[in-house]
Amino acid sequence: MDFQQRYLEYKERVDRYLLEAVGQTRPRSLYKPVTYVLAGGGKRIRSILVLLACEAVGAPAERALHAGAGIEILHNFTLVHDDIMDNAPSRRGRPTVHTKWDEHTAILVGDELLALAYRILLRTESSRIRDIAAVFTEGVVEVCEGQAYDKEFERRASVSVEEYLLMIRKKTGMMVAAATEIGALVGGGTEAEVQALKSYGELVGRAFQIQDDLLDVVGDEKKFGKSIGSDLREGKKTFLLLDALRVARGKDRQFLKKVLSNGRATKAVVRECRRIFHETGAIDAAGRRIEADIAEAKGHLQNLKPSEARDMLFWFTDMLLNRQY
Amino acid sequence: MDFQQRYLEYKERVDRYLLEAVGQTRPRSLYKPVTYVLAGGGKRIRSILVLLACEAVGAPAERALHAGAGIEILHNFTLVHDDIMDNAPSRRGRPTVHTKWDEHTAILVGDELLALAYRILLRTESSRIRDIAAVFTEGVVEVCEGQAYDKEFERRASVSVEEYLLMIRKKTGMMVAAATEIGALVGGGTEAEVQALKSYGELVGRAFQIQDDLLDVVGDEKKFGKSIGSDLREGKKTFLLLDALRVARGKDRQFLKKVLSNGRATKAVVRECRRIFHETGAIDAAGRRIEADIAEAKGHLQNLKPSEARDMLFWFTDMLLNRQY
Repeated sequence: MDFQQRYLEYKERVDRYLLEAVGQTRPRSLYKPVTYVLAGGGKRIRSILVLLACEAVGAPAERALHAGAGIEILHNFTLVHDDIMDNAPSRRGRPTVHTKWDEHTAILVGDELLALAYRILLRTESSRIRDIAAVFTEGVVEVCEGQAYDKEFERRASVSVEEYLLMIRKKTGMMVAAATEIGALVGGGTEAEVQALKSYGELVGRAFQIQDDLLDVVGDEKKFGKSIGSDLREGKKTFLLLDALRVARGKDRQFLKKVLSNGRATKAVVRECRRIFHETGAIDAAGRRIEADIAEAKGHLQNLKPSEARDMLFWFTDMLLNRQY
Repeated sequence: MDFQQRYLEYKERVDRYLLEAVGQTRPRSLYKPVTYVLAGGGKRIRSILVLLACEAVGAPAERALHAGAGIEILHNFTLVHDDIMDNAPSRRGRPTVHTKWDEHTAILVGDELLALAYRILLRTESSRIRDIAAVFTEGVVEVCEGQAYDKEFERRASVSVEEYLLMIRKKTGMMVAAATEIGALVGGGTEAEVQALKSYGELVGRAFQIQDDLLDVVGDEKKFGKSIGSDLREGKKTFLLLDALRVARGKDRQFLKKVLSNGRATKAVVRECRRIFHETGAIDAAGRRIEADIAEAKGHLQNLKPSEARDMLFWFTDMLLNRQY
């Protein structure tokens, strides 16, 4: 089985579905940016995970297509609103909605995306539609709470690594967990299968977020699609920054503390941070944590019956976490 | 039966439920403003309509309490985001969320309210939960489309009365229709009952919005809770403005056209508009349209079996549309 080929097929299926799903053009001030967002590509990780989780419990991936598309639209809703709050000028190499249009448009476009996400999710054929919608909804609550912590932490001088991990659990982990849990529910999985896939998703989501923090410092700007060091320049507390602070002493420690309390870093400060992250071992620590999460995540997959879909989930996990962008 | 007394009881029940429903305090930057919004009072019209529609098809109001609270939270979500887009400084005599906190907080608070609305709606015990969630979702889509038209119209020099009616149907009518339709679905109403209550809601919603436009010009500032003439000062195309333009000739017509193309009106311009609205008969036309909608809405109620709840719906309709605020 060529997993890469299959991944691209699933991705294309989701992409096509997303554009058909809108089906409206008026009011133009709303649907033009909505279509712009949904045509923006991306890796479609969350929707692919919904499809694979559904298959991994023994049902055809097709059955989870509505739910997969719904999760993807939900994810795009969070991006549009987060980009406003983070003052992000670009996303996936294109101007963000509030940059190309304006903030008020971006607020409304996000709201509409959230509604469309539910519309499409609710097309799912399942006797467990209430549970599915509830998991989806808790994903939204968690992501809002995660975003609130993220912004609170930007304003605080001191944040612990544990607080940071809680924040990314909510902001990223729970949405990925919702994807795999919903896939398992749509596929009619047992309680144990649903739990295993949910736990798998949560760990993959966390690893993915730590990797994002890492790539923001050591990644390839072109492949990554956003400018390097942007987290620090936004005043974000990242895993690297908080972990380095635990270890750094002397002048480096003073420097990191100043970065934390100053909020936004300049390019020169980002360069200096990168050196400290290497020297304190924060870069290595991030790598180790990603590996540990991935190992634990794969352990949960081991609890599922062997299948081609499960094999593909193993492959997909490695592909995601080996990315250089 | 003392309907006023019963209305207050229902309203208090909803108010209590809304505050319990949050049940969380952290992250504080999120839940403090969320609680602020839900504690803000208001007439709770939409939730009362859910309860009464449920009763009118023969089920206890209690069964629709989750759905009623869900619709109310949904309505509050739209208010928080619309207030940002409308630059509204106050709502129900209190500063709006983006004024008391900031715009980014208000975006996130609105998102969280929408998620909480679904969470609570999904507690509803009903075999038709999918239909209920779908009607709720279409309500959100309509309200987003309505808001987009509203903002498009602010930027356009010319808008027809028909376009305006489409806009308020989406922005206000469909949410009230969703309230009564969901109440009927929760109560296990027949197809005909669900349809009758939905049509009733849509007409009441439209009448209510036209009355809002009217009160913005002729209302009592203190009772109304927002400053008079604010629609015109915001550059909004209201029913009165568009209807007056159909009739006005000569200098008055030129004046109205200038108001339409200028966008935001000054206080002096609002005074002059008020005079023209009276003289062109726009004020009377608005009153007649409200009465016609109400008569048609009541006609739909006549198709329901006689009951105390139906009587209370008649009373509630009159109460709503006789308000001076």
